[in-house]
Amino acid sequence: MLPSPSVGWSPDTAALRILDQRRLPAEEVLRDLVTLDDVVDAIRTLAVRGAPAIGVAAAIGLAVALDAASQSDGARARRLVTAYASQLIAARPTAVNLAWAVQRMLRRAGDVSDADLVQALRVEAEVIRQEDVSMCASIGRHGLSLIPDGARVLTHCNAGALATAGMGTALAPIYTAHAAGRLVTVYADETRPLRQGARLTAWELSRAGINVTVLPDGAAASLIAQRQVDLVIVGADRITANGDVANKVGTYAVALAARAHGIPFYVAAPWSTIDPATATGADIVIEHRASDELGELPPGVPAWNPAFDVTPRSLVSAYLTDQGLVAPPFA
Amino acid sequence: MLPSPSVGWSPDTAALRILDQRRLPAEEVLRDLVTLDDVVDAIRTLAVRGAPAIGVAAAIGLAVALDAASQSDGARARRLVTAYASQLIAARPTAVNLAWAVQRMLRRAGDVSDADLVQALRVEAEVIRQEDVSMCASIGRHGLSLIPDGARVLTHCNAGALATAGMGTALAPIYTAHAAGRLVTVYADETRPLRQGARLTAWELSRAGINVTVLPDGAAASLIAQRQVDLVIVGADRITANGDVANKVGTYAVALAARAHGIPFYVAAPWSTIDPATATGADIVIEHRASDELGELPPGVPAWNPAFDVTPRSLVSAYLTDQGLVAPPFA
Repeated sequence: MLPSPSVGWSPDTAALRILDQRRLPAEEVLRDLVTLDDVVDAIRTLAVRGAPAIGVAAAIGLAVALDAASQSDGARARRLVTAYASQLIAARPTAVNLAWAVQRMLRRAGDVSDADLVQALRVEAEVIRQEDVSMCASIGRHGLSLIPDGARVLTHCNAGALATAGMGTALAPIYTAHAAGRLVTVYADETRPLRQGARLTAWELSRAGINVTVLPDGAAASLIAQRQVDLVIVGADRITANGDVANKVGTYAVALAARAHGIPFYVAAPWSTIDPATATGADIVIEHRASDELGELPPGVPAWNPAFDVTPRSLVSAYLTDQGLVAPPFA
Repeated sequence: MLPSPSVGWSPDTAALRILDQRRLPAEEVLRDLVTLDDVVDAIRTLAVRGAPAIGVAAAIGLAVALDAASQSDGARARRLVTAYASQLIAARPTAVNLAWAVQRMLRRAGDVSDADLVQALRVEAEVIRQEDVSMCASIGRHGLSLIPDGARVLTHCNAGALATAGMGTALAPIYTAHAAGRLVTVYADETRPLRQGARLTAWELSRAGINVTVLPDGAAASLIAQRQVDLVIVGADRITANGDVANKVGTYAVALAARAHGIPFYVAAPWSTIDPATATGADIVIEHRASDELGELPPGVPAWNPAFDVTPRSLVSAYLTDQGLVAPPFA
């Protein structure tokens, strides 16, 4: 069984349909969003999250909001489209896929007449969605050989169906192996502070009928030392020209443990995650987040809470993309 | 400023006084316990925790409970003492220091007349408490040279004043350096799942006026990679004959990161933590705890939740005990 989409069209295509990730794993709430405010709010509050999923949500959200607000008046749609695009991009200013998807929609808008504008954007959004679904499937296909029958796989954070419009990036080979009848057991790091592994990865894998066990981030090295993990697969937020990988904080510690015990450490990501313009991981500016994400702390005690860490190229066994296995340097 | 005791006598010595660690860091609640049920309950529910602190609490608790229940009737005290001891040991059956302290009290009871029993046990409990205070101070003194002025120290879990009757084990050199006027900055791993670092280590260090910052366990490798840590000090639950160290889960990942970046990784513990009867870490049975300690998980998803992990001797730079710096093998 493959996972259900976390972002797409409502059945009548009049709305953006998302699975509200703020409510997981306690409740599975589908929300249909039509107005631009609702779409912006969903992105801003992380009801939809994961770089590819945000891009698709913004594209579909822009199309349906414009359709509803313009009421078949092409000139009105033209007047609204730029402001709508700006509001969407501002919802999460550091989300590269969000800006990329919205700008692609704006370029398409520039190619068509007012009368065709809304319909052209609806089609463009669907193309963006389908490309994302294909990207995931392609990562899964290229990664299938990495997941033998009976494999025990450790992952960190959520680079799954909930982060894309398709079956995910790091989890795509797992879903593909499972669909091919292979037995796969997944260990999901809890992923403090926001617990994406415990809340999201565990939820989507168990929903798809895949064995999944959650562990504290600090226990991963011990699990690997006990020979209970055959390989690690994680996603990536950015891959630099030399092959360094920025991903959710905690990834680097897992890579060190995998190396210490001689098991493969794979990074799975869309080809678009590779950033040849950035030389090495040292050139990446890491976002630091608020102390209160860590929960209750003694009065006056701050937290050091970076969103990402950098795993050096030397610890990565292979880079799995929708274009197959690739190797640095990336020119 | 040195930390206040977390376990000791009430001012009139009629009760065991503990700082209720379940309420930290939100509230600082001192509790005076007199009845055996209350003492057992405090140990069982982790109101008092940390191997040395539990031993001291059991010794003082046994003395004060027996004193109150016997009402100066030595024969009555003699009839109660064995049953009281058994109830205390059963409060946390795997706590080695608890059984050790109670059995020492029973041996002392065997040496005296009924008339002297309660007073002898009160004295023995105070000796056990003072030995613990001295043990901590001695670790701090022997460890002082490891903490240069301006040192940035990473620790994991809580091996501090809250775990002992004195100034702690891993934190003792930090308190000693601070008292000697050295500037020390501490990074405390959150320590999932029970957050002893965020709740307890951060609380006691900040109370003592020492700079402390909490970080997610998964961020420690990244902090070390960024050259923001000069050395690591952790406690130990058991040290085997070959020098392998069982400590709170997450310790091993920190040791791997310290090694990868060439900073010292010190283990501080009472000499009594060394167990020459156990050959290596592979011989240690690791306690696994309930899934619900990890918080909300999707329905049916289990957690892998070991309480401890094993750091191999090869990753330990030095062993700091109350008898000074020691090196394996421990015969």
